[in-house]
Amino acid sequence: MGFTPRRFLGVKPSKALLLLPFLLTFLLVGSQGESNAMDNVSTERLAEESHRQDSANLLIFIMLLTLTILTIWLFKHRRFRFLHETGLAMIYGLLVGVILRFGIHVPQNMSDVILSCAVNASPATLLVNVSGRFYEYTLKGEVSRGKGLQVQDDEMLRKVTFDPEVFFNILLPPIIFHAGYSLKRRHFFRNIGSILAYAFMGTVISCFVIGLIMYGFVSFMKVVGQLGGDFFFTDCLLFGAIISATDPVTVLAIFNELKVDVDLYALLFGESVLNDAVAIILSSVLLRLEKQGGQGAGAVRSPGDDGPVWAEGGEEWLVENQTWTPRSIAAYQPAGDNSHSFEAMAMLKSFGIFLGVFSGSFALGVATGVMTALVTKFTKLRDFPLLETALFFLMSWSTFLLAEACGFTGVVAVLFCGITQAHYTFNNLSPDSQDRTKQLFELLNFLAENFIFSYMGLTLFSFQSHVFNPMFIVGAFVAVFLGRAANIYPLSFLLNLGRKNKIGYNFQHVMMFAGLRGAMTFALSIRDTATYARQMMFSTTLLIVFFTVWVCGGGTTPMLTFMSIPVGVDANQDNSSSTMLDGSQRRNTKHESAWPFKIWYNFDHNYLKPLLTHSGPPLTATLPTCCGPLARCLTSPQAYENEGRLHDDDSDFILNDASVSSMFADVTISTDASGSHTVNRSSTTGGGPSDEGLDHELALAEHEVAIRGTRLVLDDPAEPPTTVTLPPPPSPPRSEPRRHRL
Amino acid sequence: MGFTPRRFLGVKPSKALLLLPFLLTFLLVGSQGESNAMDNVSTERLAEESHRQDSANLLIFIMLLTLTILTIWLFKHRRFRFLHETGLAMIYGLLVGVILRFGIHVPQNMSDVILSCAVNASPATLLVNVSGRFYEYTLKGEVSRGKGLQVQDDEMLRKVTFDPEVFFNILLPPIIFHAGYSLKRRHFFRNIGSILAYAFMGTVISCFVIGLIMYGFVSFMKVVGQLGGDFFFTDCLLFGAIISATDPVTVLAIFNELKVDVDLYALLFGESVLNDAVAIILSSVLLRLEKQGGQGAGAVRSPGDDGPVWAEGGEEWLVENQTWTPRSIAAYQPAGDNSHSFEAMAMLKSFGIFLGVFSGSFALGVATGVMTALVTKFTKLRDFPLLETALFFLMSWSTFLLAEACGFTGVVAVLFCGITQAHYTFNNLSPDSQDRTKQLFELLNFLAENFIFSYMGLTLFSFQSHVFNPMFIVGAFVAVFLGRAANIYPLSFLLNLGRKNKIGYNFQHVMMFAGLRGAMTFALSIRDTATYARQMMFSTTLLIVFFTVWVCGGGTTPMLTFMSIPVGVDANQDNSSSTMLDGSQRRNTKHESAWPFKIWYNFDHNYLKPLLTHSGPPLTATLPTCCGPLARCLTSPQAYENEGRLHDDDSDFILNDASVSSMFADVTISTDASGSHTVNRSSTTGGGPSDEGLDHELALAEHEVAIRGTRLVLDDPAEPPTTVTLPPPPSPPRSEPRRHRL
Repeated sequence: MGFTPRRFLGVKPSKALLLLPFLLTFLLVGSQGESNAMDNVSTERLAEESHRQDSANLLIFIMLLTLTILTIWLFKHRRFRFLHETGLAMIYGLLVGVILRFGIHVPQNMSDVILSCAVNASPATLLVNVSGRFYEYTLKGEVSRGKGLQVQDDEMLRKVTFDPEVFFNILLPPIIFHAGYSLKRRHFFRNIGSILAYAFMGTVISCFVIGLIMYGFVSFMKVVGQLGGDFFFTDCLLFGAIISATDPVTVLAIFNELKVDVDLYALLFGESVLNDAVAIILSSVLLRLEKQGGQGAGAVRSPGDDGPVWAEGGEEWLVENQTWTPRSIAAYQPAGDNSHSFEAMAMLKSFGIFLGVFSGSFALGVATGVMTALVTKFTKLRDFPLLETALFFLMSWSTFLLAEACGFTGVVAVLFCGITQAHYTFNNLSPDSQDRTKQLFELLNFLAENFIFSYMGLTLFSFQSHVFNPMFIVGAFVAVFLGRAANIYPLSFLLNLGRKNKIGYNFQHVMMFAGLRGAMTFALSIRDTATYARQMMFSTTLLIVFFTVWVCGGGTTPMLTFMSIPVGVDANQDNSSSTMLDGSQRRNTKHESAWPFKIWYNFDHNYLKPLLTHSGPPLTATLPTCCGPLARCLTSPQAYENEGRLHDDDSDFILNDASVSSMFADVTISTDASGSHTVNRSSTTGGGPSDEGLDHELALAEHEVAIRGTRLVLDDPAEPPTTVTLPPPPSPPRSEPRRHRL
Repeated sequence: MGFTPRRFLGVKPSKALLLLPFLLTFLLVGSQGESNAMDNVSTERLAEESHRQDSANLLIFIMLLTLTILTIWLFKHRRFRFLHETGLAMIYGLLVGVILRFGIHVPQNMSDVILSCAVNASPATLLVNVSGRFYEYTLKGEVSRGKGLQVQDDEMLRKVTFDPEVFFNILLPPIIFHAGYSLKRRHFFRNIGSILAYAFMGTVISCFVIGLIMYGFVSFMKVVGQLGGDFFFTDCLLFGAIISATDPVTVLAIFNELKVDVDLYALLFGESVLNDAVAIILSSVLLRLEKQGGQGAGAVRSPGDDGPVWAEGGEEWLVENQTWTPRSIAAYQPAGDNSHSFEAMAMLKSFGIFLGVFSGSFALGVATGVMTALVTKFTKLRDFPLLETALFFLMSWSTFLLAEACGFTGVVAVLFCGITQAHYTFNNLSPDSQDRTKQLFELLNFLAENFIFSYMGLTLFSFQSHVFNPMFIVGAFVAVFLGRAANIYPLSFLLNLGRKNKIGYNFQHVMMFAGLRGAMTFALSIRDTATYARQMMFSTTLLIVFFTVWVCGGGTTPMLTFMSIPVGVDANQDNSSSTMLDGSQRRNTKHESAWPFKIWYNFDHNYLKPLLTHSGPPLTATLPTCCGPLARCLTSPQAYENEGRLHDDDSDFILNDASVSSMFADVTISTDASGSHTVNRSSTTGGGPSDEGLDHELALAEHEVAIRGTRLVLDDPAEPPTTVTLPPPPSPPRSEPRRHRL
């Protein structure tokens, strides 16, 4: 996941961080090149000098991360919980930003003479004839109007500014993949309906509520005369989409450490993961829409503009961080006569695009996940963990690339690929590879996350085109608050109508409070900072991220106490959750999972699992007899083994409809003596730092289910316990039971 | 190690693979921009299209690697040994190259009109005034003279061509670090003298022999009229330096699998690792020298040139793969009057630069390694393996960046950092982190290596400026053969004069045969392909790599049989090695390690180890009494523990001079009953696929030394064996004995 096409292929004419952008003379009529040799030598020296400078700049980040790691260790060591590592990374980033901004002044050593040559367009590639030889130049981006002639003492700051696409193509994929790969699938699936509601409907609601509120504020600002540039309605909606992506990484880390209720955890985690996917696609759809000229409706113009919009905005348009120019130049076209086309067609169209991109990315991610499962099942690659891990890594990465190549969203595809891999492929891997892949993605996730957060801190000072508008900021904070509220409370009310296992008010308040904004919001907002509106959005987003991560993140523990949500709950003792939910009746939870899920579960257990993994019942037993040869060919020997063992005990592992529903819902069934004992004992070992607990929990959940599944069929109390056929309880995490997964 | 500054900071104006280089109109006098909106939209669409294309191209490589992995698995499964995975990767690369070259024709959809504007220089950055807005352009490279006007149907091939710096900055560092990190230190240090001789003197000899032979060939070619461009003496030397970097990865993999003699393994491995460092620095010194105008001496000019050299060469100079233009443009300046300055000053100067760069890189690598050791020792980071692994990774990466920032060679610094990390830091890591770091770098190494080799195969067809000159190729093969011979045989003769443990003729022949050329040679030769000479060198290098990897790599097993070198030797039964060495007398090997090594060993064991790790004797015991408080402060509690345990047994772990030399040399001492039994038993588990065996061996070697160290002092045969104080033998790899490392 680490690399991405553009970076890696050396593809993009991005920020000229390597070659010191000494803006050189560009004469219209060429004189003959007797000064070439001299020029070349000095160019080379500059390039070398610049390469060193770059290395030094990247070193700053490495040192920042190192410092963060050491301080995290100190905090963990001392059990400080009020500040999460990401908040810490931001603080360090801020400090370094201050130092770079105010402490260091790089002396000027470049010629800043500019003679400009007027051409009719800005092509991507320029061929310059220098006294008979041709040189190819690539477009780097537009520079601000006044900047060319002014002295640049912001060299250092420009140098520590990354290409925004780096965030999307390098840093986000491992984070998202890890989220999918480490999903607690059992609790996730139990609450899937609510999660989907929060993630899809909630995000769309939040996006529109925030967009409308911001439009109100912006209109008011225009009246007051506080607006320094254009701000369209689509900009407001875009802001809503960007700011709706929640990232409660801080909160979840604390939840994990304090062992807060699993359902609350599942709701928050699931929402935030799917949330990101929705926000990405929403914002890219809005961008696409805008670029096709749909932004005319309701444009809040700054006073006195009538020309093409892109020429507006005056001298303050410092287009600093915008590398991906061709896209963003196109963002503003003359606001023509299609002013009212937004409401009708555009809405429908954008919905279509949304569905298309989402389902495409989903299908692609699942498809590659399934392919990896098949490959790892039918080859005996598990004898060579290195090869297996490499294959797993490459296939996951290729999902991202394939999605991008097909025009879908790579990040979303990677999310579903991660979930599929965890559900199927993981079972086929050797124990060694299971550890390796988990650790690899854990590390990548850790590095990428802390990098983004420390970069965020740095950006507050290093970004040179901040537009801090107090009114807009106040408006944004209000809008974010109301948007989150409009997401959580009404949806919870509606969900509680259908849900037997109610979501209590204390849960709702915590979910409201835990709507932090993080890496995804930042990446979305830094993607395009070409215009006044985008710059204002970016600056405001940065402040919102800071506030939520520090205040909401830091206040999680007090909040939990205040809301009287018990901590230290055993993640596997499921009946504990029901005691906290208002008015839930244990018996009724049986019907929590709707019939589509029962059908899906049966299908998954009877056909997909046996087809894609070594576990489950053999296909020869589940498929009709006519498919016999095919079934024999596709079933792995282990499956027969499983079946044989179960038949010896006169039990039938193939679950009927009733047992399925109880497996999803009936939470008390596992509290018989031997089962709960096993779970309790092992879970004490799994309560370590953040993500390890998660993995443990996954493994334990399966174990529990396996035991329960066997017990369900043999419900005659006179019979002896049949758990003897299953592997012995004391060694759950790294042995065979992993394969018997739900 | 994965990322590097330029790529990562989005730094370099590299190949315009993102924006389809539709070579657009470039008018001298600008017309006003009414067509801007149209232009921008089409530019944007092109850019998006191109992004997809890029993803697809990178997908080709991922698929290539996936295919390679699956085939490797098949080969390992069936125990085919005649073709190593790298050879396989090359074959797949070749096939894809053929398909891309001859199978796919991308339709033309770009405008190829060029109107050129003559300017007086080729600045790194160009500011173009497009109807009032400024666009920044960065230099991409010079294009061939005729190419601008001709139709480009080689788009696809250009797209799969990487920036050469990617190899140096992204792909090589993990390979080199892994080499250092997985070095078998005991056998390495036992043969350190010979290894240094082969690596330093041998590489320099080889470089000059090859350079001289090639100069002869080139001069002859000029007479015959076979030379199509210039070829200077420094080019010949550069070729010698490039082609002298051996990379016996194939051979060593087979050695590992067949369990060939450890000394032979150590010699080959050590030579090839240090070799790379020498070749890098040699070639960069030569390049620097050349660029400063020292190439005048003995220039073999093509007929009829008298102007500035860079303007020569005619139409066939297709400067395709040259991105890093400012450097390579400067490579050829007018060959002025400093024609005879090479021999005297330049030689001395280059030697000075060589020493400076080498020692600087060495010091830097060691320094960061030591720093990591100190950090991991004095923090209790080992409680959090994830943090520990992340820190380790970041510190190792920062070595590379720091070296580049200081103007040293990052790859060399990373090598010594790896060795230092393995020697000190590794002991301080938690067992979990030890596994994680090893697995991480193993994976990175595997991916990078296979990527480079498959790219090599691809390059044979995708690179568009090949110059295959039959005479030059024949000459190069002869020169490579003779250069290797001039390295191995005379040096072995000289070394055998001083070595008691002689290097037999069969060993010499195998070393001669195992001089494969691989990743490093390729990276060095693709770094600069600007001129006719460099292109010829590159094409020839490619052929040499193919030949050596396939023929020499494939012929390793027959060669071993032919040379009657026994296979299946237990790596830890050291006496086996002495039986194979001509005329070695076991008693005399005691003095094999020279006195500097004894001093070093004592210093390392008494001061450095206790200071930097948790093992070794406490500093309070080894430092003079006046340093008492300091010593107490620096010694870790574990060290006292170790001391206490050893004192209980009346043994003294602090080794005197005699025991040190026997530890280095006396190979039979461990063949007492309990010791060899332990080792034998465990080593059978360690004889798996390539690198795992290596790690096992390292762990076992330590174990053995620990046992032996105790035995040495208690050499009274009447006493009972004292190994009871050491952890029980059956669990060597993951327990305490790791810390008692030599």
